[in-house]
Amino acid sequence: MSLAIIGLGNMGSAIAEAAITGGHQVAVWNRTPEKAEAFADRATVAESLAEAIAATDMQVWVLSDYETTEAVLAETGVSAALAGKTFVQLCSGTPAEARALSAKVTDLGARYLDGKIFTYPARVGAEMTRFAYSGDEVVYKACAPTLKTFGARSGWLGPDPGFAAAADLAWLSYLYGSMVGLFQGLAFTRAEGMPDEAVFGSVPSWLVEIDAEARYSKELIERGDFHGGQAELDVHFAAMQHLLDTAQATSISNAFPRMIVDVFGEALERGYGGMEITGGLEVFCKP
Amino acid sequence: MSLAIIGLGNMGSAIAEAAITGGHQVAVWNRTPEKAEAFADRATVAESLAEAIAATDMQVWVLSDYETTEAVLAETGVSAALAGKTFVQLCSGTPAEARALSAKVTDLGARYLDGKIFTYPARVGAEMTRFAYSGDEVVYKACAPTLKTFGARSGWLGPDPGFAAAADLAWLSYLYGSMVGLFQGLAFTRAEGMPDEAVFGSVPSWLVEIDAEARYSKELIERGDFHGGQAELDVHFAAMQHLLDTAQATSISNAFPRMIVDVFGEALERGYGGMEITGGLEVFCKP
Repeated sequence: MSLAIIGLGNMGSAIAEAAITGGHQVAVWNRTPEKAEAFADRATVAESLAEAIAATDMQVWVLSDYETTEAVLAETGVSAALAGKTFVQLCSGTPAEARALSAKVTDLGARYLDGKIFTYPARVGAEMTRFAYSGDEVVYKACAPTLKTFGARSGWLGPDPGFAAAADLAWLSYLYGSMVGLFQGLAFTRAEGMPDEAVFGSVPSWLVEIDAEARYSKELIERGDFHGGQAELDVHFAAMQHLLDTAQATSISNAFPRMIVDVFGEALERGYGGMEITGGLEVFCKP
Repeated sequence: MSLAIIGLGNMGSAIAEAAITGGHQVAVWNRTPEKAEAFADRATVAESLAEAIAATDMQVWVLSDYETTEAVLAETGVSAALAGKTFVQLCSGTPAEARALSAKVTDLGARYLDGKIFTYPARVGAEMTRFAYSGDEVVYKACAPTLKTFGARSGWLGPDPGFAAAADLAWLSYLYGSMVGLFQGLAFTRAEGMPDEAVFGSVPSWLVEIDAEARYSKELIERGDFHGGQAELDVHFAAMQHLLDTAQATSISNAFPRMIVDVFGEALERGYGGMEITGGLEVFCKP
């Protein structure tokens, strides 16, 4: 299956490299041609976007957002070239944006897949890297061997074109949660005059715990009972209060401790204090 | 080195089991004797706390908090028994509480170590499990072979008895950050009618990314320059805004998206938009 990469920012360039490394014939197009010229020795540099589409079966769109994608679609000759092609949209956005673009592209006679990228450019093409797709399953299956060159752990989430975007919001939540935790932790140890290594040296052990905690939450959710023998929400809440008190006492940011005291405090008010921390999930779903 | 475990809640019991499995002679004491009796076939059940202290070299205290620990210390005969012993405090608390208890215990003629537990009861004693200690290094080194039976990755952070507690605040921040991210993510996918597996099935890949992100932040901090070629804070901020908009549109909790939009928005106001996300660390340290 021949493919074109549309948009060669950090992420589009990494995807083009992965597709080339995976042995595919690749065409590239970018608004400013310098980034495309960098691929001249190993890919076809398209003269125009319409030409890139006409010359390939599948186009992988990696522009900055849906608004930009729709603006480019409206340019002369682009929409007309799409009939019979497979359009794979990879930029970040909301489920509603994905569904709207799916409807528009399908109306133009093209097949549509919405994909989301659970990684950074440096790890595109790696063994553990995952992209998630949603849309027509038959279309996904036809494209999967090619798409898996971007990330071997990639998969299909369902026929609703908005599902990949919803999973992306989950990935971003998990990513930003961990980054907030890391930065808050560094703020705490720096406030005591400790080297950052007190945090970074522990991360490998902490990630093992965090993996186990996610599995434990899954188990409790499947069991339908959030009570267990590890640590009750009452105990966690006392620890969250320590975080807040210490953040205030040391003049570091207390935004994150305050947020968790608020949200898990609501869980306590609902009578979940004897549950494991997973009891707090209810408040995230129904605040 | 003989040891006593003081307090047999979920965590104290798990630590006593690990010490016994590690081949140590263990005495146990608990306020309500039923939990101690459960160890009668493999440990010495002390008649009183003063007896447990008198009979052993090192006491590992696993009560609910520092306040409880200080109250128990004030009971008849307890303080007097401590001279010449090693007191290892394992409950959660703040650096200030750790320093205050260290001063009190040292005044009683005992050696003090403050330790913090980066795990849950189920994983005490495991290969990747880490406890962190601070206080006198000579004392730590003498106890380390015994203490490592609780978690093989355990280590010493420095002579200040408050350091372990500060590292514990960092661990709790990282743990709660990841749990908040997980729950927020499940809220997003549930709001779209997706199965939880859309999140749980991705966690193994996500953790590889999160590990790599922590290493990348470490690299940028050591380099002293938060600019890089992965994803700029401006790009992340647009994604955070998607989280907030979608949380509001779907009536799930928007507390976490709002918090990150506030904190990283401040980073943008400081002109960090062209940096990697690690630029946000400055706002956590100096809000």
